[in-house]
Amino acid sequence: MRASRFFISTQKEAPSDAEIVSHQLMMRAGMIKRLGSGIYTYMPTGLRVIRKVEAIIRDEMNKAGGIELLMPLVQPAELWQETGRWDKMGPELMRVKDRHGREYAIQPTSEEVITDVVRTEIKSYRQLPLNLYHIQTKFRDERRPRFGLMRGREFTMKDAYSFDRDLAGMQASYKVMFDAYTAIFTRFGLKFRAVAADNGAIGGTGSHEFHVIASTGEDALVYCPTSDFAANMEAAEAMPLAASRPAPGQELTKTSTPGTTKCEQVAQLLGIELSKTVKTIALVVEKEVDGKKTTENWMLLLRGDHEMNEVKVGKVPGLANHRFATEAEILLCYGTLPGYLGPIGTKQPVTVVADRSVANMADFVCGANDKDFHYIGANWGRDVAEPLVADLRNVVEGDASPDGKGVLAIERGIEVGHVFQLGTAYSESMKATFLDENGKPAPLQMGCYGIGVTRILGAAIEQNYDDKGIVWPTAIAPFEVVLCPMGMDRSEMVKTEVEKLYADLQAAGVDVIVDDRGLRPGAMFADWELIGVPHRVVIGERGLKEGNLEYQGRRDAAATAVPVAGMVEFIKGKLSQ
Amino acid sequence: MRASRFFISTQKEAPSDAEIVSHQLMMRAGMIKRLGSGIYTYMPTGLRVIRKVEAIIRDEMNKAGGIELLMPLVQPAELWQETGRWDKMGPELMRVKDRHGREYAIQPTSEEVITDVVRTEIKSYRQLPLNLYHIQTKFRDERRPRFGLMRGREFTMKDAYSFDRDLAGMQASYKVMFDAYTAIFTRFGLKFRAVAADNGAIGGTGSHEFHVIASTGEDALVYCPTSDFAANMEAAEAMPLAASRPAPGQELTKTSTPGTTKCEQVAQLLGIELSKTVKTIALVVEKEVDGKKTTENWMLLLRGDHEMNEVKVGKVPGLANHRFATEAEILLCYGTLPGYLGPIGTKQPVTVVADRSVANMADFVCGANDKDFHYIGANWGRDVAEPLVADLRNVVEGDASPDGKGVLAIERGIEVGHVFQLGTAYSESMKATFLDENGKPAPLQMGCYGIGVTRILGAAIEQNYDDKGIVWPTAIAPFEVVLCPMGMDRSEMVKTEVEKLYADLQAAGVDVIVDDRGLRPGAMFADWELIGVPHRVVIGERGLKEGNLEYQGRRDAAATAVPVAGMVEFIKGKLSQ
Repeated sequence: MRASRFFISTQKEAPSDAEIVSHQLMMRAGMIKRLGSGIYTYMPTGLRVIRKVEAIIRDEMNKAGGIELLMPLVQPAELWQETGRWDKMGPELMRVKDRHGREYAIQPTSEEVITDVVRTEIKSYRQLPLNLYHIQTKFRDERRPRFGLMRGREFTMKDAYSFDRDLAGMQASYKVMFDAYTAIFTRFGLKFRAVAADNGAIGGTGSHEFHVIASTGEDALVYCPTSDFAANMEAAEAMPLAASRPAPGQELTKTSTPGTTKCEQVAQLLGIELSKTVKTIALVVEKEVDGKKTTENWMLLLRGDHEMNEVKVGKVPGLANHRFATEAEILLCYGTLPGYLGPIGTKQPVTVVADRSVANMADFVCGANDKDFHYIGANWGRDVAEPLVADLRNVVEGDASPDGKGVLAIERGIEVGHVFQLGTAYSESMKATFLDENGKPAPLQMGCYGIGVTRILGAAIEQNYDDKGIVWPTAIAPFEVVLCPMGMDRSEMVKTEVEKLYADLQAAGVDVIVDDRGLRPGAMFADWELIGVPHRVVIGERGLKEGNLEYQGRRDAAATAVPVAGMVEFIKGKLSQ
Repeated sequence: MRASRFFISTQKEAPSDAEIVSHQLMMRAGMIKRLGSGIYTYMPTGLRVIRKVEAIIRDEMNKAGGIELLMPLVQPAELWQETGRWDKMGPELMRVKDRHGREYAIQPTSEEVITDVVRTEIKSYRQLPLNLYHIQTKFRDERRPRFGLMRGREFTMKDAYSFDRDLAGMQASYKVMFDAYTAIFTRFGLKFRAVAADNGAIGGTGSHEFHVIASTGEDALVYCPTSDFAANMEAAEAMPLAASRPAPGQELTKTSTPGTTKCEQVAQLLGIELSKTVKTIALVVEKEVDGKKTTENWMLLLRGDHEMNEVKVGKVPGLANHRFATEAEILLCYGTLPGYLGPIGTKQPVTVVADRSVANMADFVCGANDKDFHYIGANWGRDVAEPLVADLRNVVEGDASPDGKGVLAIERGIEVGHVFQLGTAYSESMKATFLDENGKPAPLQMGCYGIGVTRILGAAIEQNYDDKGIVWPTAIAPFEVVLCPMGMDRSEMVKTEVEKLYADLQAAGVDVIVDDRGLRPGAMFADWELIGVPHRVVIGERGLKEGNLEYQGRRDAAATAVPVAGMVEFIKGKLSQ
């Protein structure tokens, strides 16, 4: 490619709505252009990266036995009604009516359509397993689109769907996809981590997320550096901090703690460690008993220095549909206001659930259900009945790994892929069956597998940038190499050498762009550093007279002189690293 | 590719709503699957063809200096309101509201968005010319979707937009695109014709359509076999059939023609040729004069054997907004009912426009404005005032070519591409200007260039099929070669040779599929003939024992024995033809 025939449009300043570095740099590098809220045109430089990402995904999906098709964007409402998602999905699902008033969804994902395809195509177990995928534009009407391609509304996703005859087959297909994803993210040249994930609202039996590691990531990833354990924060099991509960050592004492409603304040007032305090979270569950609406009172207890994990709370039997208690409900149940709640002496019956670590505490401090008072020296069994025990909290750095093979570390990540064991949720609601060996109909076992194609760009940049701009991994860079001639219009020597090198690199299969725009060196270098081309060769008269060209990798502090004759091999060596 | 790992789903019968052969064959071959009215999933076999079509388009667009980007599907209404197309486009434009009630169009084309992109990116004449294109999903809410991919609602289109500083530049860019399209359709391996087209409602200064030739095509293409002249029916100029008007030879005679309201009936009754009759078409134009609504009466005269050309009529000065007269208006103006109208003796003043051929007629037959009566021997100047003269009719086979270099022929075509000189219509309404050499702002001169990617599939099949199925041109076939082993599971010899040939062909860069599904020969051959793979090699024990394989081209009546050792070269030879 010649820069003079390409479209390069860099900017000094990012627009004010670009809050994160990848959004800022993509706008400044002219890779995307905003059309509307969460809607971007992929400009030529950005599209080249997308195409490289897609090609790697396609190649590995095909190797893994995936078969590509292309499902429509505009999908009839009837299919979405069959699975109930037409109602469940809410305003995130973009809906449209045609000229006859028929309703359609603009696809955010394609479970319904693929299940519709296979229920008419798959008749026998002999046609299984099957893995179908497409790379297609998606639309999700996000409440608050932001961060450029990270949380856009229109985006590109690769979504694959596997179909198997039984659970074991589905899990084997899942493993194949897991391995394909590992191969894909490895080829991107990005640091990533696969973590076990919660199955969430879709149901199913297992799932993993693939995250690009970046300190700016929205998600906390939990892993054990000395074992295979890795999970996202929602799914990472927190082990009790003590193996067993010590014997009580203190008397239960009600103490005045005026105006101290937070554990931190109580610990400071009493001169104790925060880890000796217990915080109380009041929940209610609404029920209908014999047609009458009623509420149950629940209480969660967490150590003062721990954070509640919403997903784990929702999994406690009986708490699937909980909500926080209102102030009025708290007054009625505890006789006091939030800040002084505790398990001892509530006014109404409360089901108490203690986090595993709280269950093993002795002599703890908690609210006394009396304004401006806390208890010191509280103990299970003696002062209050034994609680239900559950894992309610987020893990923290240094916690024991659930596999018992070390301690946990936490890093930040950006979710770019998700593999999911769907089971028969969709095949049952849509009646997608096949005939098994005995000629009996059975529902298809399904898995689904997504990669956020356009999101990869944002994530790659969050992981790889410096103060000059983007630093693309070579595999997904818009160009592998840029040639920067010095004074091409003045020097016949430079011009000849540039054209020769350009031709030789192209012949060697290198994706090279020559900057023939005639810019000053500073402006030229700044452009390519901002755009993030990983390898740069400068062709100048001074070097040529000594038989040299200048090579500089995007992360190198300085240039290296490389003999003219050896440059193609030199570049090939760099690209094969 | 191995068929056992691919998704092949052929059917004996096409669905009853498949009216045309390409739709029937694509459904039977399992290339597309209907999701809703005019909405199809592109199944794996179909998608392979689409990708090959796209690759050829992309390659030639890039060679011609086009730069690829990707514009969003969901486009803000505000841009469409700027050009007035939000209102003009009617129900064909699919409109959608987001969760905040903001309106968007699902793109049927991208003039507005590309003009918005360039108006902020293009500042100077130095950045011109520029040609930007994308290959993207489109949606048009057709009133009556049908014919499979020929008139679908969701489809894929390549649309390119050129930007130039002046008219000459735009015309040069247009020529480059015209040549690129010629290269693209040539590489597809399809018989096609570029014809001059009417500029239609978009305005602008010139356009050509690219048609795939097919006897089932919706459009009539007019061309001169002995010259370069080619135009679609709307745009093909009809020359007068006589160079000058003969002198009158008959007296004007009113004759009784009871119940004969059609020229054919009149000619039969009077025993004359249809070409001696003239038919009258009554139009009105509604006007507002001094705030009062009024109508003008117009009359078109065409030879009895000629067809009116609506587009040409609309171009007659004064007739841009015509409509057919109602029966009431006709009674008032002519004093009689349709079937007996003519230019002689109307009750109200009528502006008479005669087709060029009618203007040069003498002694013609026309209605007498009296029920059950016609005139014989009517003559211009003598019996009725000289009319306005215009080209009002469709040309017919044998008409003189407008370039004077032969006579016209007509064939049928399917429009698959359109190149269009837009001029400044969009750049002016959207204020897309650049600074010229003198630093003065000027509107960008634009061209737009479309190819219906998915429509190509339908058109290619309409041109290339037989009673067994599709006959793809090699360049866009889902696979170039299919290997059909006979009894692969029984014969080690067959199995070894198939695997070797499969590997050798792949190594030679051939897009080959081996049918390892274990079907009977008849079923296997029928599948590949239906799917339309252009080259087939049969590997059987009988042939192998004589050192031969069997080759058969999709259009060949019989197979040819080819020595095993020479098959790869033989196939390469076939593919390079």
